Amino acid sequence: MGQEFLNLTDPDEVKRIIKNLTINRKTEKVHLTETYGRILAENVHATIDLPPFDRASMDGYAVHAKDTFSATEDHPVILNLLEVVKAGNVPKKNLLKGNCVEVGTGAPLPSEADAVVMVEFTNTEEDQIKIYDAVAPGENIASRGSDIEKGNILLKSGTIINPNKIGVLSAIGMSYVKVFTRPRVAVISTGNELIKPNEDLKYGQAYDINSETISSAVKSCGCEPIHAGIAKDDYNHLKDKISQFFDADIIITSGGTSAGAGDVLSEVVEDIGKVLVHGISVKPGKPTLIGTLPDENVDKIIFGLPGYPVAALVVFQVFAAPLLRRMAGIKEYKQKKEVIKFRVSNRYHSARGRSQYVLVKIREDQAHPILKDSGAITAFAEADGFFEVPKNVEIVEKGDEIGVIPLSRL
Amino acid sequence: MGQEFLNLTDPDEVKRIIKNLTINRKTEKVHLTETYGRILAENVHATIDLPPFDRASMDGYAVHAKDTFSATEDHPVILNLLEVVKAGNVPKKNLLKGNCVEVGTGAPLPSEADAVVMVEFTNTEEDQIKIYDAVAPGENIASRGSDIEKGNILLKSGTIINPNKIGVLSAIGMSYVKVFTRPRVAVISTGNELIKPNEDLKYGQAYDINSETISSAVKSCGCEPIHAGIAKDDYNHLKDKISQFFDADIIITSGGTSAGAGDVLSEVVEDIGKVLVHGISVKPGKPTLIGTLPDENVDKIIFGLPGYPVAALVVFQVFAAPLLRRMAGIKEYKQKKEVIKFRVSNRYHSARGRSQYVLVKIREDQAHPILKDSGAITAFAEADGFFEVPKNVEIVEKGDEIGVIPLSRL
Repeated sequence: MGQEFLNLTDPDEVKRIIKNLTINRKTEKVHLTETYGRILAENVHATIDLPPFDRASMDGYAVHAKDTFSATEDHPVILNLLEVVKAGNVPKKNLLKGNCVEVGTGAPLPSEADAVVMVEFTNTEEDQIKIYDAVAPGENIASRGSDIEKGNILLKSGTIINPNKIGVLSAIGMSYVKVFTRPRVAVISTGNELIKPNEDLKYGQAYDINSETISSAVKSCGCEPIHAGIAKDDYNHLKDKISQFFDADIIITSGGTSAGAGDVLSEVVEDIGKVLVHGISVKPGKPTLIGTLPDENVDKIIFGLPGYPVAALVVFQVFAAPLLRRMAGIKEYKQKKEVIKFRVSNRYHSARGRSQYVLVKIREDQAHPILKDSGAITAFAEADGFFEVPKNVEIVEKGDEIGVIPLSRL
Repeated sequence: MGQEFLNLTDPDEVKRIIKNLTINRKTEKVHLTETYGRILAENVHATIDLPPFDRASMDGYAVHAKDTFSATEDHPVILNLLEVVKAGNVPKKNLLKGNCVEVGTGAPLPSEADAVVMVEFTNTEEDQIKIYDAVAPGENIASRGSDIEKGNILLKSGTIINPNKIGVLSAIGMSYVKVFTRPRVAVISTGNELIKPNEDLKYGQAYDINSETISSAVKSCGCEPIHAGIAKDDYNHLKDKISQFFDADIIITSGGTSAGAGDVLSEVVEDIGKVLVHGISVKPGKPTLIGTLPDENVDKIIFGLPGYPVAALVVFQVFAAPLLRRMAGIKEYKQKKEVIKFRVSNRYHSARGRSQYVLVKIREDQAHPILKDSGAITAFAEADGFFEVPKNVEIVEKGDEIGVIPLSRL
């Protein structure tokens, strides 16, 4: 009975297949200002000692710590002010016993000083400084190389360059940084019924949703989408479209994988390359295809997402996003990091025998399952993320803790 | 005793003051392709019914449901195939009783059809289709407007445009979208000792860290940084720098707020505007300044972060980021959303009397406090986020659950 056209693969097996795919990573140098969100492609070593010299870590007075040992609130020690060294200036005098030097935070210390008394514990009377508190040697100073010594490793290749990492690169004065080139991802929508935004919608047609959805999801993985447009559900047209964008690092299509559409994608991939997966035992997302196409050095990966927008995005997030992040150079990417725990608001019945991905909206710290089919745009409008119900679980009870994967990292 | 120059404000009071600041929000129209990460500045209504016509939600055969009621696996019903309608095509014939029409997913239904039998439950013998399963009226069809009817609201102003929201905008064929203009944020570093990346580091100098760190953090809030460069710890120089970048929507400086640097920022702000906060009872971040400068319509906000990079970024995230996100148009922004719960790896002693922000690195699902001072760049290199120890808490026990705020949303 029926046209059972797919040989379903278990999702864990699919993940294993994807993990074993060979990828090609390129690097480039970009200016520090442009590095936010990029992935470091080299180990970064400290090119200088940090701090580069002994400096004051508080505003106050550089002293011989010994001179202050007897100081108390009632019986201050009085020291002679030799000079004032603000941050950016350089001390000119030797610090003899019984003397002190006013220093700003970040200012270099006179070489003989071994501590700084915070300004809050002092009082000034002309050139006489009253010290009301004892300091130990080393107090309120940051000695040369105490943070990190020249030559030691600061950041590892694969680090995502976020604001604090940019701070680290700034600290050693790096202006050009070697990062992984953003993989270029050709995004193709397939379907005779699809039209571009702003075109007039005729009876039987639908606006192409996946091109923009998947392109923006591609951006969220640190890759650069190439809008390859719409292909017809037609062998030659789809094949031409794929050839046309073959300079991309990976090709992602959506639609064209179901029986009704003639399953043109699998025909094309079978003819010019190799189908690795066609059909995954998940819901939604069953008609997903993964294949490779022969290329110069490393075979080009092609990912055929289902046509329904919700299915396309969920399958993208579960299966394609980890691959894209790996191609983008994100080291040891763990999807686990993405998961946020919530309690589920309602009892949920899952389909038997297939892993199921359920859209949820988060309200008042609870995950509310969205019970709409994967063609529903309003489900998209409401959804904050989704959770997975493994194939051997049929019922998720109200109040159960689930791991929600955000639909976007924004 | 001492120069107690700051009148410390409680962090909750500071947040209240910031919340009450008047802001100016501008909007602009951008192409759909450029909307990822932007904030919607209008309510979006469905301009068409979705779906726009009754359509098949599965590949199969459009039927009168009644015709299939007696169908079973052993005794199929046989229907006559009238025509084939793929997605993008239009049905041409009337569906009379005893007949069926082959339909692809997304194809319009013949107007008389009230259900679709999935292809899996059928078999074809020339123009005769054997139906092995009964369908109820409405099964496997999505009727016009069943997802959403024209005129109803799809997305609200203030929504962050992530991939699924882009899908929603695509579904109604929107090509230009009204979004909030990214607030322009002038970022100024203050300090005589500071030099730009790639300059030669002389004794007493330090590379400017905060310019790039804060600029990238500004990007993570949906705002556009303007690199205003380095100002000297000098009243006139800082005042000139501020005037020069007065066309920005908000000004963020760092450094120049401590006693040793002469506290030039507060002098400038007092003279040309109003100091609202100078000193917050937090650690790190005590010398923070918040003020307003008179401007045409709405007073311009100026934020003076501490000079130490860790202090600057933490204060930015706690106090400035929510303001910037509000300026960027993010509706009802809740920092809560940002917090991820972890157990702390070690007992942690906090300073008394001030709220404390503690950098942590996440390893093996535990938050490890980084016990370095806020001048340490290696702390920055390791840190994934930070948690807050309220002022009345002195000890966080090993294994306590804490809320970690990521240092970046990347």
